[in-house]
Amino acid sequence: MWCHPFVTQLAPIDFRSDTVTQPDEKMRLAMSAAEVGDDVLDHDPTMRLLEERVAELLGVDAALWVPSGSMGNLIALVLHLRRGDQFLAPRGAHVLDAELGTAAWLAGGMPRPLEWDAGPGRVSADAVRAIAGTAGPYYTLTSRLLCLENTHNAAGGTVTPPDEHALLVSAARETGLRVHLDGARLWNAAVALGLPPAALTVGVDTVQVCLSKGLGAPVGSVVAGTQTFVEEARRVRKMLGGGVRQGGVLAAAGLVGLERIDDLAADHANARALAAGLVELGWEVVEPQTNIVLAEVPDLEVTLAGLRHLGVHASSMAGKVRFVTHRDVGADDVAEALRRISSAS
Amino acid sequence: MWCHPFVTQLAPIDFRSDTVTQPDEKMRLAMSAAEVGDDVLDHDPTMRLLEERVAELLGVDAALWVPSGSMGNLIALVLHLRRGDQFLAPRGAHVLDAELGTAAWLAGGMPRPLEWDAGPGRVSADAVRAIAGTAGPYYTLTSRLLCLENTHNAAGGTVTPPDEHALLVSAARETGLRVHLDGARLWNAAVALGLPPAALTVGVDTVQVCLSKGLGAPVGSVVAGTQTFVEEARRVRKMLGGGVRQGGVLAAAGLVGLERIDDLAADHANARALAAGLVELGWEVVEPQTNIVLAEVPDLEVTLAGLRHLGVHASSMAGKVRFVTHRDVGADDVAEALRRISSAS
Amino acid sequence: MWCHPFVTQLAPIDFRSDTVTQPDEKMRLAMSAAEVGDDVLDHDPTMRLLEERVAELLGVDAALWVPSGSMGNLIALVLHLRRGDQFLAPRGAHVLDAELGTAAWLAGGMPRPLEWDAGPGRVSADAVRAIAGTAGPYYTLTSRLLCLENTHNAAGGTVTPPDEHALLVSAARETGLRVHLDGARLWNAAVALGLPPAALTVGVDTVQVCLSKGLGAPVGSVVAGTQTFVEEARRVRKMLGGGVRQGGVLAAAGLVGLERIDDLAADHANARALAAGLVELGWEVVEPQTNIVLAEVPDLEVTLAGLRHLGVHASSMAGKVRFVTHRDVGADDVAEALRRISSAS
Amino acid sequence: MWCHPFVTQLAPIDFRSDTVTQPDEKMRLAMSAAEVGDDVLDHDPTMRLLEERVAELLGVDAALWVPSGSMGNLIALVLHLRRGDQFLAPRGAHVLDAELGTAAWLAGGMPRPLEWDAGPGRVSADAVRAIAGTAGPYYTLTSRLLCLENTHNAAGGTVTPPDEHALLVSAARETGLRVHLDGARLWNAAVALGLPPAALTVGVDTVQVCLSKGLGAPVGSVVAGTQTFVEEARRVRKMLGGGVRQGGVLAAAGLVGLERIDDLAADHANARALAAGLVELGWEVVEPQTNIVLAEVPDLEVTLAGLRHLGVHASSMAGKVRFVTHRDVGADDVAEALRRISSAS
Repeated sequence: MWCHPFVTQLAPIDFRSDTVTQPDEKMRLAMSAAEVGDDVLDHDPTMRLLEERVAELLGVDAALWVPSGSMGNLIALVLHLRRGDQFLAPRGAHVLDAELGTAAWLAGGMPRPLEWDAGPGRVSADAVRAIAGTAGPYYTLTSRLLCLENTHNAAGGTVTPPDEHALLVSAARETGLRVHLDGARLWNAAVALGLPPAALTVGVDTVQVCLSKGLGAPVGSVVAGTQTFVEEARRVRKMLGGGVRQGGVLAAAGLVGLERIDDLAADHANARALAAGLVELGWEVVEPQTNIVLAEVPDLEVTLAGLRHLGVHASSMAGKVRFVTHRDVGADDVAEALRRISSAS
Repeated sequence: MWCHPFVTQLAPIDFRSDTVTQPDEKMRLAMSAAEVGDDVLDHDPTMRLLEERVAELLGVDAALWVPSGSMGNLIALVLHLRRGDQFLAPRGAHVLDAELGTAAWLAGGMPRPLEWDAGPGRVSADAVRAIAGTAGPYYTLTSRLLCLENTHNAAGGTVTPPDEHALLVSAARETGLRVHLDGARLWNAAVALGLPPAALTVGVDTVQVCLSKGLGAPVGSVVAGTQTFVEEARRVRKMLGGGVRQGGVLAAAGLVGLERIDDLAADHANARALAAGLVELGWEVVEPQTNIVLAEVPDLEVTLAGLRHLGVHASSMAGKVRFVTHRDVGADDVAEALRRISSAS
Repeated sequence: MWCHPFVTQLAPIDFRSDTVTQPDEKMRLAMSAAEVGDDVLDHDPTMRLLEERVAELLGVDAALWVPSGSMGNLIALVLHLRRGDQFLAPRGAHVLDAELGTAAWLAGGMPRPLEWDAGPGRVSADAVRAIAGTAGPYYTLTSRLLCLENTHNAAGGTVTPPDEHALLVSAARETGLRVHLDGARLWNAAVALGLPPAALTVGVDTVQVCLSKGLGAPVGSVVAGTQTFVEEARRVRKMLGGGVRQGGVLAAAGLVGLERIDDLAADHANARALAAGLVELGWEVVEPQTNIVLAEVPDLEVTLAGLRHLGVHASSMAGKVRFVTHRDVGADDVAEALRRISSAS
Repeated sequence: MWCHPFVTQLAPIDFRSDTVTQPDEKMRLAMSAAEVGDDVLDHDPTMRLLEERVAELLGVDAALWVPSGSMGNLIALVLHLRRGDQFLAPRGAHVLDAELGTAAWLAGGMPRPLEWDAGPGRVSADAVRAIAGTAGPYYTLTSRLLCLENTHNAAGGTVTPPDEHALLVSAARETGLRVHLDGARLWNAAVALGLPPAALTVGVDTVQVCLSKGLGAPVGSVVAGTQTFVEEARRVRKMLGGGVRQGGVLAAAGLVGLERIDDLAADHANARALAAGLVELGWEVVEPQTNIVLAEVPDLEVTLAGLRHLGVHASSMAGKVRFVTHRDVGADDVAEALRRISSAS
């Protein structure tokens, strides 16, 4: 491909992540019209609306806006874990691999990765019981928390269905574990299953969802749980430097995003189309369950560079090429990307 | 005062903090028109503009937007301090009293408060030398950092002039200390002195300034230093959950705020007018140097409640009543507040 | 003094600390005869005896051996403090200045030094109430712990009497603080007051005492409190690497040390004799309350070097020369030291 | 077995761990005769001898006594790791599972367990390269350290031979990793291989060895590396509360232990005899490489209780029964244990 310098002129098609989505006109208008207040001192009114709306969607008592999904997960882990605790999470989970070790050095938990014994990105209730089911002597780690991720990013946006989720929650309860759900892309799981998001949070203690990925808000996530959790979380958010003042300008964008959950179906269709097209071109790709397409390639860096040369931007994930579809790449962008890849093959 | 229930009808005048300032029309328009990108992956273009502009104003190499001043200070301390280090800061400094101990438990530093031996909120170079000037044996704390605050909030917005600042920086250099400047209200110090902000950052390693206080932006601060510092700070920001995506919407507001530094002179005039009026009413008040008025009262809680009843909102600071003037309270608001207090006396 | 090279031939007299005390014959025999077991797995029998004996002496429920007083204090602070807490301690306390910041970076507490408003090394109940008596909003530090030190090392081995102790404990209780007592030299305080040690621990949650200072054991301290505290402390001790196996060999020495508490009176008499002698020689010395003599000198380093040249070894403490008397320096050593200093003056 | 109450009268045979070994007469005499000093202030002379001897045996520059192997590992990890780092270790490593998460919450590293792709308890150089070989963007974990364990306890005292060790060190060097070797039972590996211990430390940055396991000293381990490492380690040891005073009494026992490395061959022979005997009795046991015998049983708790009833004390390890042979159980104890198990079957 490197022999066609002109291809760099091609308009970029950005599949690196759904985090690249830009706020559209409606969101920008909502931001500029938002009623705001000092959220540290008083609770900004638009923040309050957003937090109530998310709590309602998730079927939990209360919610708290945070600047990022990483901070949402971190706050939950800080509040669940103590020195000497271990937490269980499926191998490749965001809290394990993509949060710079804060689960360990800041929240204080020892990670215990679980193999995917129930499908890609999914773990079985038995695996949870095997580890958490026995208490050791005083000088051994205490199993404290099960951290789930739905959809599971590194496994390719895979979905844990509600019955399997229920079994995991039961295993956690039996063995004295709390449950945190990293739901950065929980909306995608819900849409893929045709269920309300609250169907996927049953029994969890805490859950985090993102507004800035598929929903397209510029900044922000929400962490949710009981009223007590949220009160403590507000304090931890302040510690971490996540207490903002007139945050309503961002919450307003989030509220618009929440109206668009159903739009994610289009992203999923686009992902399936992209995967099918790549398979036709001879790529090794698993059928995507949501908006993430993982492709196995012989040489990751070479492939990513080649794609970049074609103006097709993808990312690497656990040794594979990752394409993420989102509201700023349409069906025609998918088709165009496939055309470019095809012509360069 | 409690015998006049009708006073609760009075329009509130909010002197609790300059953090309550609301984005105005121009800021909101700038936000809605901002060119944005994924700041984690690519560096958002408006973020980049803001960061360059702040670095230039502060006379340093590079700068990084953060969601709050607390996070800005925290990132600097995380990067300056190691286990076994102590840092020196004037008694009452924000990093000591108002950041929930993150300097200790998260950045890992042992705080060493310095008495105000050079005036309210100000410390002498000799005090720095007395502590940092001698290295102890291997089992003693290492003095690593001098953390200044200009203006000093808890002392009443007091200003450290550039010559005194220079002496402190020299003492730090001689004794092997780095210097971080908490400049949350550095703009106020510069305006009060009639100097460019860069005149107050000479010799520091890192500095933090706020956009969301007197400058009126809804969200955000900036931490600045060398290019290397900013690269490392970007990583620490991500750890803490402060990496945001299309942050340009907030940076755009910050850029508008930066055009308004000179407007702070009005806040300072209003503070002086408020202080003078209170003194006339028999209050014990020190002449303010910037936009903060501290009043000594017999019973803090009673006074704050009484003021609240009059629709005059103030806060407590180190056992005193604190009034902060800002762009959302004008000269007439000050006059009206004094009228209400006078009538209720 | 530097002109008398022969003085280096003089036998050293070591006043640097009571930590230099060596185990004597009886202790060594006890060590070599000790019944031992694996203290991590089973609780070593001699450890158990020592811990029961110390708990009894201190009038608390249970006790735990630790390798050092620093670890004893650290374990207590780890168990008392949480992120966002502050602890109060008299200025110059060992936990503030001489434990390498572990109170902050490891136990997670923000230190709040208290001025000595009740005498050298002593603080008033009012000072405790002034800081801990008011709870701030959610984004402010929580006052959690009062950390006392009796005797107070950096103030010169000063004693807090039981009535003053009781007032401090009351103030702590009223304001919701727990109380930890750093009693590294509590034995000295008790002997100076002619009271049993338990008279000085009334109302505390936890207390730490050393076996390796005046009592002369080679290694070890004990931290004590409720049965629950000790169970948790055992776990934290294991975390820090302080869980040892056949520790009974050290506990046996500690048991011998405990029989010698009353011998400390001799150290106190020697300290008074040393102080009196120094005053006669024109030194600026405060009458010692226990076994520590602090002397104000024009140039600390010069004086320490001069003394060293005379074979008189002292240490520096808070800008002063510190002489510590102990069982390995007798009345004749004090007399000889004074002779040497006199002859060199 | 529970129907034979008389069996509880049987003399206990303790295979729980080699940590239960008791100091013998020679060790006790050495302890009681040891020349000692204040190791924090001056470096205790017997400590110094011990540390020099261990450094020599390990072929490294310098060494430092610590109260436990856990503290030795912890100090090394504290000095190797920084926030945002991950460290690689074979699954089941002591630093992962048996040190209460200090690698995470205290040393600040994110653990990355490696599968045993090169044999029980052993990992391949390729596995190291696969993870550490690529640097990610600024917001990803930095691979910093490879933590090896020889012998590997949880895998059953398995030995990594020197050629395999060399390949792992090479892979670490190529990918920018440092190497720490948890050699709590390195003496056993050396004896099993018939090599000097230094043959198994080639290329490591730091190594920890225990004196209180097979060598029989009552208390203590040693962590070793460069002179600079040891200087920094001394400071970290003080932080953790591991700085002791007249530690020479323990070092003296350690020096006696070091004379007995070759005796471990007897423990290994006993382990083989025990394993063979158990196999004859129908147990599922792997041939031991050193002094640890792991047996797979249908119900771990039932088996351990049954053994206990016979006066045969074993422990659990990774779901298996673990028997550890050591100098306080001889060939006849092994024979007697087998007799009891046989008679109860």
